[in-house]
Amino acid sequence: MARFESMTLSELPGGIWRTRLPVRFGSCDPAGIVYTPEYLNLFNGVIEDWYGDALGLPYHELVGTRRTGLGYAHVSADFAKPSRMGDVLDVAVIVRDIGRSSMKLTVHAFKDGTECVRATFVTVTTSLVDHKSIALPDDVRLALMSYQTSCDAPASPASTSRGYGPACRRDCTLPLRAPLARTD
Amino acid sequence: MARFESMTLSELPGGIWRTRLPVRFGSCDPAGIVYTPEYLNLFNGVIEDWYGDALGLPYHELVGTRRTGLGYAHVSADFAKPSRMGDVLDVAVIVRDIGRSSMKLTVHAFKDGTECVRATFVTVTTSLVDHKSIALPDDVRLALMSYQTSCDAPASPASTSRGYGPACRRDCTLPLRAPLARTD
Amino acid sequence: MARFESMTLSELPGGIWRTRLPVRFGSCDPAGIVYTPEYLNLFNGVIEDWYGDALGLPYHELVGTRRTGLGYAHVSADFAKPSRMGDVLDVAVIVRDIGRSSMKLTVHAFKDGTECVRATFVTVTTSLVDHKSIALPDDVRLALMSYQTSCDAPASPASTSRGYGPACRRDCTLPLRAPLARTD
Amino acid sequence: MARFESMTLSELPGGIWRTRLPVRFGSCDPAGIVYTPEYLNLFNGVIEDWYGDALGLPYHELVGTRRTGLGYAHVSADFAKPSRMGDVLDVAVIVRDIGRSSMKLTVHAFKDGTECVRATFVTVTTSLVDHKSIALPDDVRLALMSYQTSCDAPASPASTSRGYGPACRRDCTLPLRAPLARTD
Repeated sequence: MARFESMTLSELPGGIWRTRLPVRFGSCDPAGIVYTPEYLNLFNGVIEDWYGDALGLPYHELVGTRRTGLGYAHVSADFAKPSRMGDVLDVAVIVRDIGRSSMKLTVHAFKDGTECVRATFVTVTTSLVDHKSIALPDDVRLALMSYQTSCDAPASPASTSRGYGPACRRDCTLPLRAPLARTD
Repeated sequence: MARFESMTLSELPGGIWRTRLPVRFGSCDPAGIVYTPEYLNLFNGVIEDWYGDALGLPYHELVGTRRTGLGYAHVSADFAKPSRMGDVLDVAVIVRDIGRSSMKLTVHAFKDGTECVRATFVTVTTSLVDHKSIALPDDVRLALMSYQTSCDAPASPASTSRGYGPACRRDCTLPLRAPLARTD
Repeated sequence: MARFESMTLSELPGGIWRTRLPVRFGSCDPAGIVYTPEYLNLFNGVIEDWYGDALGLPYHELVGTRRTGLGYAHVSADFAKPSRMGDVLDVAVIVRDIGRSSMKLTVHAFKDGTECVRATFVTVTTSLVDHKSIALPDDVRLALMSYQTSCDAPASPASTSRGYGPACRRDCTLPLRAPLARTD
Repeated sequence: MARFESMTLSELPGGIWRTRLPVRFGSCDPAGIVYTPEYLNLFNGVIEDWYGDALGLPYHELVGTRRTGLGYAHVSADFAKPSRMGDVLDVAVIVRDIGRSSMKLTVHAFKDGTECVRATFVTVTTSLVDHKSIALPDDVRLALMSYQTSCDAPASPASTSRGYGPACRRDCTLPLRAPLARTD
């Protein structure tokens, strides 16, 4: 019934950056689970950490010092299972596409080793001075490409056979997004 | 370049419920525009108001008293233009699909009369007692269908020719979601 | 046991600006009540609306166009009763003190006519260009004084005897803040 | 001009639990600094981590499994200096008072080694079943007392003379809260 086929954590290529995300009280709603919009907030923080840790480009320098806007043209998220206060999620970031002035990332959250949320973020780079679209800065483009390459190695022989290796290549066989939404 | 074709406010059928949403300081980020995850939070509040005002079913009674979970299986949003502190958005809710235990809504935000954000929310109804999926409660289903019907009248002869009238019918010609994401 | 003596809504002087604040799902925590930090967020929005509606000085013009920082040197809140999803609070703003480059406001939230939360905000005006403290702009000072004066009339003969009238004057007999914190 | 006398990080007794808090984009407002209500949210998360790490009592077990409410009767915060995107704050928690059914904590945030924010949280323990006040559970009381004791050792001879050692004792000489608020 989920709108995407859940991966397991072990299927992720070894080169993929990941972090641990504790689910705190303040992120949860009266149903006792993470408040949906808060996932996007938490994942935005994950992406911010990924810029510094995995790309070597601290987010606050890009946005603050260099005045490069990293706003979103599109965000989406699909939920297979709720997360509760006290859960600790593993979260990984994959670069899906690199355009002239945009990029597409997917964020994958795992609970007990199984993917429970998958989100997509399409960023358009802008100048924060005049708010016009600009080309991806060269160092950002290079860092994204380098990260893609480092993710290219399969996690294990088993995952190769599934073709996960290309997760970071253009001919990615992992579905880029959920199949067309159907209710029920 | 936007991922959806912006409507104008005047194209909305008269029967569609809408509200006014002031963009406040606390919703904005260091780039001076609405923080992306905050849009989802604001729209969640809009949907909550819509339950009470348009469907006649106060959200807190459904979720609180009746313990009916209205969690999301999917959310997405596309952004054509940023919104700034001091802007006042018009926001409308359209029922796109009614399933056995789920429904799909789209939320449309307009700035100065032109659509600037379009979001999609797919809700799955659950029991908050055992967190299992349940059928849409009858009164919810009836209210959704009645709202769809009331939205059916075209806004104006002009909009009829564009076929907007069926926005709330199954054979809706307004794109249900953005075309497949392409970066750049 | 509350740390302040709750007022009733009818004790407020007629001239005091107030607004209605619906408690939505997204503002509540797993205990089903408003998440404490969210009160401060909601009240910040109330204060923002008050700038425009009661002072005639839209907040986004002060902060955005004029680059006048309205940051806080102090915030505090005392809670007499929780608020739940579906509650609609009445919220009023009182000007407590006007300094050279700062002001003190109190925000009073009422549930079913009885004060349930009282918060204090001390704002220091700064230049957002160099982030240095600046004197309160003249129009802000005048608007604050004018608002104080308009609040000066007692709500009713009964409230006069309690001395509420001077709520907005320097010799205010309403406690400016909770008595010194005692646990238990 | 600050409403409290800033400590330095080195003045903290060695036994005090502390954590590192990165200031992310999503926590900042259009003035480019941490949005005031967000401090309370961040500190609430710090306190939650402290329950598990320093007291050995995971917060989600207390609130979730055991249904013990840890709501606040009072919160306050004083700000000496703003924090910006990219800053990493050191944050420490001190137990100030232990009552029958309540406790008072202070949270101290340090930027580059100097205290920039000091917050106070007074928690009242309740039953989440009937929302009535209950006595502090025995294990919570013992853990709080044990933490106080472990914080008792002075950081250094110098700090002893200043009397910081007793920060966690009843006769604490460090101001429990800011002096009475004065504007300007």
